[in-house]
Order: sequence, then C-alpha cells, then structure tokens
Amino acid sequence: MPTAFHKVILFGKRHREKAMVSTLLRLIQHLENKKIEIIIEKETAEICGIKNHKTADENQLAGLGDLIIVVGGDGSLLSAARAAASQHLPVLGINRGKLGFLTDIAPNALNEIDDILAGKYLQEKRFLFQTDIIRDDKILYQQTALNDVVLLPGDIAHMIEFSIEIDQELVCVQRADGLIIATPTGSTAYALSGGGPILHPSLDAVVLVPMFPHKLTSRPIVISGNSKIKILINKQTKALPRLSCDGQARLNLKPEDIIAIYKLPESLNLIHPMGYQYFATLRDKLQWESKPY
Amino acid sequence: MPTAFHKVILFGKRHREKAMVSTLLRLIQHLENKKIEIIIEKETAEICGIKNHKTADENQLAGLGDLIIVVGGDGSLLSAARAAASQHLPVLGINRGKLGFLTDIAPNALNEIDDILAGKYLQEKRFLFQTDIIRDDKILYQQTALNDVVLLPGDIAHMIEFSIEIDQELVCVQRADGLIIATPTGSTAYALSGGGPILHPSLDAVVLVPMFPHKLTSRPIVISGNSKIKILINKQTKALPRLSCDGQARLNLKPEDIIAIYKLPESLNLIHPMGYQYFATLRDKLQWESKPY
Amino acid sequence: MPTAFHKVILFGKRHREKAMVSTLLRLIQHLENKKIEIIIEKETAEICGIKNHKTADENQLAGLGDLIIVVGGDGSLLSAARAAASQHLPVLGINRGKLGFLTDIAPNALNEIDDILAGKYLQEKRFLFQTDIIRDDKILYQQTALNDVVLLPGDIAHMIEFSIEIDQELVCVQRADGLIIATPTGSTAYALSGGGPILHPSLDAVVLVPMFPHKLTSRPIVISGNSKIKILINKQTKALPRLSCDGQARLNLKPEDIIAIYKLPESLNLIHPMGYQYFATLRDKLQWESKPY
Amino acid sequence: MPTAFHKVILFGKRHREKAMVSTLLRLIQHLENKKIEIIIEKETAEICGIKNHKTADENQLAGLGDLIIVVGGDGSLLSAARAAASQHLPVLGINRGKLGFLTDIAPNALNEIDDILAGKYLQEKRFLFQTDIIRDDKILYQQTALNDVVLLPGDIAHMIEFSIEIDQELVCVQRADGLIIATPTGSTAYALSGGGPILHPSLDAVVLVPMFPHKLTSRPIVISGNSKIKILINKQTKALPRLSCDGQARLNLKPEDIIAIYKLPESLNLIHPMGYQYFATLRDKLQWESKPY
Repeated sequence: MPTAFHKVILFGKRHREKAMVSTLLRLIQHLENKKIEIIIEKETAEICGIKNHKTADENQLAGLGDLIIVVGGDGSLLSAARAAASQHLPVLGINRGKLGFLTDIAPNALNEIDDILAGKYLQEKRFLFQTDIIRDDKILYQQTALNDVVLLPGDIAHMIEFSIEIDQELVCVQRADGLIIATPTGSTAYALSGGGPILHPSLDAVVLVPMFPHKLTSRPIVISGNSKIKILINKQTKALPRLSCDGQARLNLKPEDIIAIYKLPESLNLIHPMGYQYFATLRDKLQWESKPY
Repeated sequence: MPTAFHKVILFGKRHREKAMVSTLLRLIQHLENKKIEIIIEKETAEICGIKNHKTADENQLAGLGDLIIVVGGDGSLLSAARAAASQHLPVLGINRGKLGFLTDIAPNALNEIDDILAGKYLQEKRFLFQTDIIRDDKILYQQTALNDVVLLPGDIAHMIEFSIEIDQELVCVQRADGLIIATPTGSTAYALSGGGPILHPSLDAVVLVPMFPHKLTSRPIVISGNSKIKILINKQTKALPRLSCDGQARLNLKPEDIIAIYKLPESLNLIHPMGYQYFATLRDKLQWESKPY
Repeated sequence: MPTAFHKVILFGKRHREKAMVSTLLRLIQHLENKKIEIIIEKETAEICGIKNHKTADENQLAGLGDLIIVVGGDGSLLSAARAAASQHLPVLGINRGKLGFLTDIAPNALNEIDDILAGKYLQEKRFLFQTDIIRDDKILYQQTALNDVVLLPGDIAHMIEFSIEIDQELVCVQRADGLIIATPTGSTAYALSGGGPILHPSLDAVVLVPMFPHKLTSRPIVISGNSKIKILINKQTKALPRLSCDGQARLNLKPEDIIAIYKLPESLNLIHPMGYQYFATLRDKLQWESKPY
Repeated sequence: MPTAFHKVILFGKRHREKAMVSTLLRLIQHLENKKIEIIIEKETAEICGIKNHKTADENQLAGLGDLIIVVGGDGSLLSAARAAASQHLPVLGINRGKLGFLTDIAPNALNEIDDILAGKYLQEKRFLFQTDIIRDDKILYQQTALNDVVLLPGDIAHMIEFSIEIDQELVCVQRADGLIIATPTGSTAYALSGGGPILHPSLDAVVLVPMFPHKLTSRPIVISGNSKIKILINKQTKALPRLSCDGQARLNLKPEDIIAIYKLPESLNLIHPMGYQYFATLRDKLQWESKPY
C-alpha cells in the first residue's frame, strides 16, 4: 500500500542549466506552499546557488527524507540512482519538457506531483549492476550502473579480444570493437543503437550486445538477471580496452583483467504517476503508432 | 534427484527416411539387449514398418512409459513435444549426425544413452505456448507451440495491419509482413533469421520479432514469459494473414480475429547428457570461437 | 535544355478515392484555364467518372501528349511508370497531401506545376527491371518493375531454396524466405524494411536483399545496374515460391524455373520541381535531422 | 592484352613474422631461378634482414619494376596500395595460408605465380579515397585509403555530432558514435561488421555506414564513387572525434573541422590468377553454400 511523502530530497543536473534551475526553484516554492520538508542535495545546491535550505551529501540522505525528486533528463536520474538505491529512497523524475524513459513527469505537471506526494502513485523496481574490475586476483575498482556496462575500444586501431563467461560457463571468445551489457532500463539507451532488443522493465534479465563483432553470426544474447557475467580480457589483445558504467568513469583495462558483472542487492524504487504505461512512453519515443493507419 | 528409466517410448520423424529408420532399429536392438521395455509411437511404427513391438497412440502414452526418445532432427522433437508435455513425459533427442539445439545426442552415442537410462542426466524445463484464435468472442481454434507462433502474410501483396497488446496494455499498431512470437527455445530458430536476440533457455521470457516492419524504429521486444499477448487483426487490413505454430498448421485469419498467446501450464522436460552446456551447442551451430584467435 | 509541356496526360489511382478525384478535377480545371490540352488515361476516366474529355488507353499514349501527370501516391506512379517508360513520356507525380519519394508535388502546389509546364524543372532518369520467367527453356512470362522484383514464399511453411547467379557467376545457393532485388528507386521501399541500404537514385546499381536467410552471414549485396541476374529455383525445394513485381502480379513458380532480371533499355524520365533535393525527401520521410541538435 | 612481368618488387608485412619471412625467402629463390629481376622494398628488407638484394624506398619504385608482389594478409596489401597506385604499379597479393579478399594466392601456389609472370592473369581496378582534413580553410592533413575512412569517437563518453554533405547537398545532421565511409574494397572489411552491404568491386560506388546512430531510422547509404563527401564536425560537439584511414593514422579532430573525401585519380591495379571469381572468395570467407542443401 503506497504511503504519502512528507520530506523530499531534491537532486538536479550535474551542471548548471537555466531551465533546470527555474524548474527546481518553482518546485521548491510549490513544495513549501504545501508544507513539505525540503532537503537539497549538496552539489545541486552549489550548482544552482540555492542557499536558504537544508542541504545534505548524496551519501548521507538515509533518514533525512522519504522521496528523492530528480529534476533533469534521464542522465540526471542515472547519477542519483546509486545513492537512491543504496539508501533505500524512492525516486521520482521530472524532465525538462521532453519525455524521458525515467523522467516521466513534465516540468509543469504540479498536479501529478501533488497526487504522488499524497500517496497516489505506481512504483516499480529497477535493478542495478555491480561491476568489479579484478586484476591479479584483487578487486581494483567497483562501480554500479543502472543502464549499462560498456567495454570500449582504447586508443589503438585494433579489435578487442575477450572471453565471455556466464555462470562459469564459456559463452565464446570474441573479437569486436566492444561489448554492451545492459539492464532492461538500459536496453532502450545505448544498447538499442547497437541493435539490441527492448527488454520490458519488469523482466529480470540482462542483454549482451556485441559491438561491431568480427563474426557475423554474433548476436545479442538475453540471460537471467541473476547471472554472474565475467569478461576476461585476452592475454594477447593488442587494443587495450576501457570500461564505462552508465556512460561515466572510463577506466583503462589491461590484458588478463577480469570484469565481473552481477546484480546489486539493492534495487531502485522508481515512482510513476497513476496511469503510467511503459509502452506509451516507448511509442512516444520511437514514434510507433497507437491508432489504425 | 534424477531417476533411472525402464520403459521407453520411441518417436521418429513424420516421414520415412533411411538414416532415421536404421538409427531407430539399432536403438531398439540396444534397448532390448539392456532389457528396457519398448513402446513404439503408432505413426512411427507405421512409417518405419516396425511390427513386432507394442505400439501406442501419441495421445495415450501416460502410464505406458517413463521416457520418450525422439530420433530425428529438432523438427521431430517439436512434433513430440506437445504429447510429452501434456502427458508429463520427459524427452531425449537423438539427432541424425548433425547436432541439434534439442536433439543433442549423436546417433552412435549409445554410452551416453546408457548413462541417461541409468539416471545420470541433466534435466531442463522448456515452456510451450498455448494459442487461441478468437472470432466473434468464441475460441475457434487452439494450438500449442514449443518454438514460435508466427503471423504470416496471406495471399495478397499488402502488409498486414494489427495491434499488439500485452497484459491488456497496447504496445502499438503495426504494419508489417508479420510477427514472430518465440519462446527461448524458438529464439534460435526462425526468430534468429528475423534479427531476434538469443534468449537463454532458462529465461522465463518471450520475444516478439516484427517481420519487415513499415516503421524502421520497430525492434524486437522481450517480455515476461507470464505475459498474456494479444494480436488483433485490424478491421481494415487488406491482406488476410495466416497463423503458423512451430511451422505447422497454417490457419487463415480474418479482420477482427484475435490471437491470444500465453504459457501452457505444462512444460516440457528435456533430458541432456551430463556435461551438456547450452553455449557449447550455440558455439557449434553459429561457429563462434572457443579459443583465443 | 528542358522544354515546356503543352499536352498533358492524366493518370489516377487504380481505385476510386475521394481526395484523388477532387485533386484530379481541380487540376483539370487549372490546366483548362491555362489552355493546356488534356488527355485522361482511360481507366482513370472510368474510375473517376470523368466524361467530357478525350481519353486514351495507357498503351496508346505515344504522340498524344508530352507529359504524364500522375495523381496519387508512389504506388500510382509505379503503375504508370511502365507505360511512361515504353512510350518515352516524362512523368510528374502529385501526392495526396503526404510527400512521396516519387510524387513530390503537393496537391495544392499549382505554382510549382505552372513552372514545370513552362519548362522550369529538373529531370532525372530512373531505370526499370525487365523480368523473364523461364520454364523448360522458354520465356513463360515477362514483367517490368520500377521498384523491385520479390521472390516470396508460397503456401507451405518451408524456406525456399534457390541459387543466385550474376553475369553467369554463381553467387551462392541460399535458403531463405525469399529475396528482394531492388533498383535505387525501390531501395527506399520494401527493401528498406528488409534491412537493405539506401541507393542514391543516380547510382547505376541494384541491391539483392535476402529475406530471413538461413545463413546468418548473408548480407545485402550491391551490384552494377548492368548485371544480368539469374535466380534458379532448386530442384528439391519443397516450398513453391511466387514472384512479385512492384508488389503486383504474383506468379507461382516451380522447381527448376529460372528468373532472369536485367535492366529495361527504356528508362523513366521523372520530373521534379526546381530546387528538388533527394536527401531533403529522405530526411522528411525518415525523420532525420537537418539542424544541429 | 596482359603483358608478362620481368622485374618484381617485393613487399612484406610491417612487422617481422616467421611465416612471412620464410614465404618471402622461398619466393625470392623461386624468382631468381626464373631469372626475374628482384627489388626488395627497403623497410621489408630491414624487417626481414634480407641483405644481398637491391632495395628501394616505397616512394621511389617507379621505373624500377613492373609488378609489386605483397606477401602478408590484406592489411599488408593496404599498406602497399598507396605506393602502388601513385606509381602506377600493379599489385599481386600472396597470403599466409588463409585466403584474403585482396591476397588470393596461397603461399605455395608457385605455379599460379609463374602463370601470372608469363602474362596469364586477370586485372581489376580498385579505386582509393583521398581524404583532406580542413581546418580554418586550410588543408591540415591529407591521407589515402583503399578500404575506408572512419570517423571515430575520441576520449569522452558522448556521441559525436556532425553533418554530412554529398556534392554540396546536405544529407543530415547526425549524432552517432561515428561514421564509416567505405569503398567497394572496404565494404567487406570494417563496414561489414557495422551492418553495411557488400559492394561488388566493379561498382563505382561508396557506402556510408553510421556507427550506433542515435536515430533508429539511420541506414547505410550507397552513393556514386564520383561523389564529393564532406563531414563537418559540429561546433557544439562535446566529444572530439578522431579520423582513421585504413585503420591507421588516427588524427584528432576539433569542432568545425571539415573532412573532405573523394576519389583519388590514380587507382590500384590488382592482379588475380586466371579463373579468379569474386563471389568464390566471398563464399569462402562468409561460409555461404555453393551446392544445393
């Protein structure tokens, strides 16, 4: 049974943008009028120059609020997702005028926000990836991702060579420009440009999309969301690849590095207005028809 | 805990083929030597001219045996799958010399068969589709499928126009040559030629692959295996489509017909030799590499 | 140096449609006011119930007029193309409110039509296919096509098996649902849905697009427009294919039939308004961007 | 009428490889026995430690020989192609045991080489690209390519934004990871992994293949080989792209840089043994069938 929200944490984009700031200020005004307690995420407050409000570090939000509202595009929500999931805070996304897959509230839809605060909303779980980069049997680096983990070409003009293992079973040794490993959430982002299928967000599944594979018989593979995926950079690979999580944090890899990808125990709790339909968003974004021709 | 098998039902191809008959006869000899009780599926007995054995109709196998062995290709196993699933009989597939996705025992691998009969095997569940064709609110026709349900163009040179609904939510109205709805088992069959992804057989999921869609933004969609899928043939469609289940039984459809597709409650119990690996079969069939280049 | 047009032959759609008839009548009125001589193609006159004008059979237009104006969509222009090419008459296409690849004049753009009649226009050559169906060494049937020749599945649920030869060199033996052979004009029609590339209309080339090929390494192949293409239906093919030219005239084929496809000596002379740009049409139809994001 | 060859220039790979050196030495021996005059390309001589032969710089070969023989893979032939084209020397490619698209003579096929030297061969023209990088209205850099010119992502995780112009007509503004511009020769190399079509080598055409385009309606476009292509890096692009010609020489680009790509006046004269068939090579490389199934 959904509960009402009384203390709201506000997140913005990671760089100053006029439209975002004005939406944020209008939202603050609206929430204050409704006597909702407001906390501004610290970096957001700095970027937007908001001073007369309580702020908090993105890693110290637990207990302070009961809902995170993100103002920005899908990219901004990706940034907030990790903090939200690990601190068990639900997230609502307000876009900047253009419907997002994750930010599905229009900037002027204050009515919809009111309904949600009053406890009238839909909630949906979205899982995240945990990624470990293992070198010499030690975890060198860890990162989370809501959309995708991407193995990318490094500097030199050669294909990357790597092995893929799923649940300790070899899938194949692949020569390719790279590999996209996407959650259902990420299946409509970069993986879609690469020819991957759309995975319904309710699906507990992961898709592996090879990028420009040498073998023309390579295809996207959909596996269980509970799979443990391992990518092993081959010893003799000439092109040193990099790794990117949700389009951020590119880390340089070396031959014999292992990338382990598996589901993060905590998932993201995404809030939608009543009447939200996934396929309606998909139709809007991909210009599919909803009426007979 | 796997049990040993003592009474075996033998299924062959649906048309006489020399290699199949000789494999079947050799297998009968081998099973007799091992004192395994043998029942021959009636049509198989007729096609192969096998006379001195107990036979049984494919719909009256329950209680007679504890394992079905199919001799043929993946297509033969598809034919036996419905009888096997509804009568809760596990199935083992013996190929004709060429590895199949479903028939993974070589015709001469009598050792592997002995191990399986002795209780040393892996088993795997594969779900089937139930398909209802609904006209004027009545179910006109029902069919099952292990691989796929395919909406195909009928006679005239126009695209089909239909709506797709999943769990009562509209996905889109589509103009296309047709639509493939495939189980994970079927994802490596016809759907793969149509650009669909590979779904791991352990995945409880279904893929919808549009065939030559009018909208270039149409993409394969992967949804939960528990989804109720409805295809509604549009009123004004000029091309009358047909429906095919596992490549069989093409039924002519009319405007306003509804095709409902959902999971059959009984699933197929597929038997594999110990050491079976799905991805090894995939590598073999698609010529993927298993060693560094 | 372009010449002005004084005698215009009018073609409409092949079935009655209100918007088409009213555009046609408005056009007749406009041309009469300009003292342009008008001939109505016979079937068009009958379909539209136009009585007080000179009519002519589509095969007996040579010498009667100096320009064909087609009112309808790209499909209507396809129908008129053969008559136009063989009788050396240039063609102008007027659409029904939605930009076509071939019919690029809006129904209300009478100014553009006036300019064209006055000799201010661009002209472009588009080649057509000649297709011979050969059985027992005799030509059984001949057909022309501006867009494409398509080898299609017949009734039974099996892949077609055929060989492709180009200039007497074997390309491959293919198992597929069918094959699309498209001109540059047809490359943005059915072939595009099948994953084929866009061929610029100025290119003297042909593309072969396999439909749902069995081999995942099959790819569209672009060859010279002067190539002689031969498709040989294999002896043992179980599925009897059909052949379609520009989406019309499906002919049933038999094993060992040969389909020969080559360029028709006469090409179509397509008229465009000044300022016409192929890529502008493409951007409009495929919603590509023309401005920085 | 083909002429016999008497003075042969030998080219090897750009790094030492045992198999290549031994093939080269065996070939030298064979040619000496046949009294053919031998010139070793300077870098090849150094890499292979060949001392008792006349050597020449790759840019000063004109007049010294009448045929270049390349020992290596297709990559080695790419390196030699520019020198060969500009100095009007025909090229023959000897592979290292695995059939190449360009290097189609097996290392032990001395008979075939003898026939070719005696004047029994086929020759084929392959065109090359000239690429100018223009900054502030000046040509900053020029490069040639036999396979492809590739616009690649630079370091940052953003799509590149660029405009494409063909013969001064805007094609579109594109957001993508990059763009491949390939000759027919290059259409079976990197462009094929990216979903491009195969262009027959006799075709005077170029294909543009978008890499992971943002717009799902983006498609490979085939244009005339005589087209002048311009890629304009957009002012506001955040990701600085790089440019690669035949997989070499990655140059960093800046916003507002212009890349002009057009046909080099001199083409490569590629020598094949009698009986060479392009489609036979294609079948071999892509495992297409040549016999009925």
